[in-house]
Amino acid sequence: MPIVTVQQSPGRTKEQRELLVKRITEAFSEAYGTSPEAVTIFLQNFDDEHWAKGGKLHSDRS
Amino acid sequence: MPIVTVQQSPGRTKEQRELLVKRITEAFSEAYGTSPEAVTIFLQNFDDEHWAKGGKLHSDRS
Amino acid sequence: MPIVTVQQSPGRTKEQRELLVKRITEAFSEAYGTSPEAVTIFLQNFDDEHWAKGGKLHSDRS
Amino acid sequence: MPIVTVQQSPGRTKEQRELLVKRITEAFSEAYGTSPEAVTIFLQNFDDEHWAKGGKLHSDRS
Amino acid sequence: MPIVTVQQSPGRTKEQRELLVKRITEAFSEAYGTSPEAVTIFLQNFDDEHWAKGGKLHSDRS
Amino acid sequence: MPIVTVQQSPGRTKEQRELLVKRITEAFSEAYGTSPEAVTIFLQNFDDEHWAKGGKLHSDRS
Repeated sequence: MPIVTVQQSPGRTKEQRELLVKRITEAFSEAYGTSPEAVTIFLQNFDDEHWAKGGKLHSDRS
Repeated sequence: MPIVTVQQSPGRTKEQRELLVKRITEAFSEAYGTSPEAVTIFLQNFDDEHWAKGGKLHSDRS
Repeated sequence: MPIVTVQQSPGRTKEQRELLVKRITEAFSEAYGTSPEAVTIFLQNFDDEHWAKGGKLHSDRS
Repeated sequence: MPIVTVQQSPGRTKEQRELLVKRITEAFSEAYGTSPEAVTIFLQNFDDEHWAKGGKLHSDRS
Repeated sequence: MPIVTVQQSPGRTKEQRELLVKRITEAFSEAYGTSPEAVTIFLQNFDDEHWAKGGKLHSDRS
Repeated sequence: MPIVTVQQSPGRTKEQRELLVKRITEAFSEAYGTSPEAVTIFLQNFDDEHWAKGGKLHSDRS
């Protein structure tokens, strides 16, 4: 523990995801003193037809 | 906030999903007075080999 | 299935929650043709010190 | 209820998943006395580029 | 990994929870060959006024 | 979007949580270029009798 689940849009490059998980893990070390090995992160993609805001699928909003 | 995550079977048409997110957003407006823009909804698909009930994968129940 | 998990602020009255779950269940019946008994909804409360937006705990934003 | 969501690596055979959901359902019957039909299980796959531990994507750790 | 999140009713004794997590962990060892130390389980309680089925809060169904 | 849900142990001070959400939000800005206002974070506490590892409740491991 901690376990972190991120709900996000797809399309991020590997480099972007690498930097994101690095920084999130550092956030726990700095704020909670958590060992990096204890931090597990899941990146969960939702395409534009499978998430909505304001009553509309994101694909209908752009 | 609120954030709504739906675990569902795949195969719904775009029109079905459009109506679903519209009505769920209206539910929050009517029941909680929430502004539609504050409601985020995620639709998460699980195929028949990745969800189970009664101790069996759904694909083994049909 | 479907299973619906709502992340929300606490403090909603029982009547508000009753109306919300009624309307969300109706949304699935109308949009997907789902039987009401198949729809399970979870309401998960997060107080102002346990959810954040814009880099701040909600309690620090009000 | 109960609803069980498993975050796991992909690549498990159907037989492995069949045995897993059977045993998890039996666990609820034995420990809680829950009827098997009341237990719903979701298996959610995360490939090596979409989960991380120790500040690195799993694909960068192997 | 794997991470298991259980949404359940409150009121289970410590012994029931101990047996449940023991058996679920054994299920992963038997079905996936997973080491017990790799299995993390979360038990998340929802009281009768915070989960619903068939369009009604559970407290209104009993 | 993105929505971040953290499953963690209770007992963190407000200052620790403030720093954590600040740094996680900065991680998204730096890695994904996301606007801070688009990042929502939930901190979900699990006490030692409601999370397990290695087949044991955490309260039985310490």
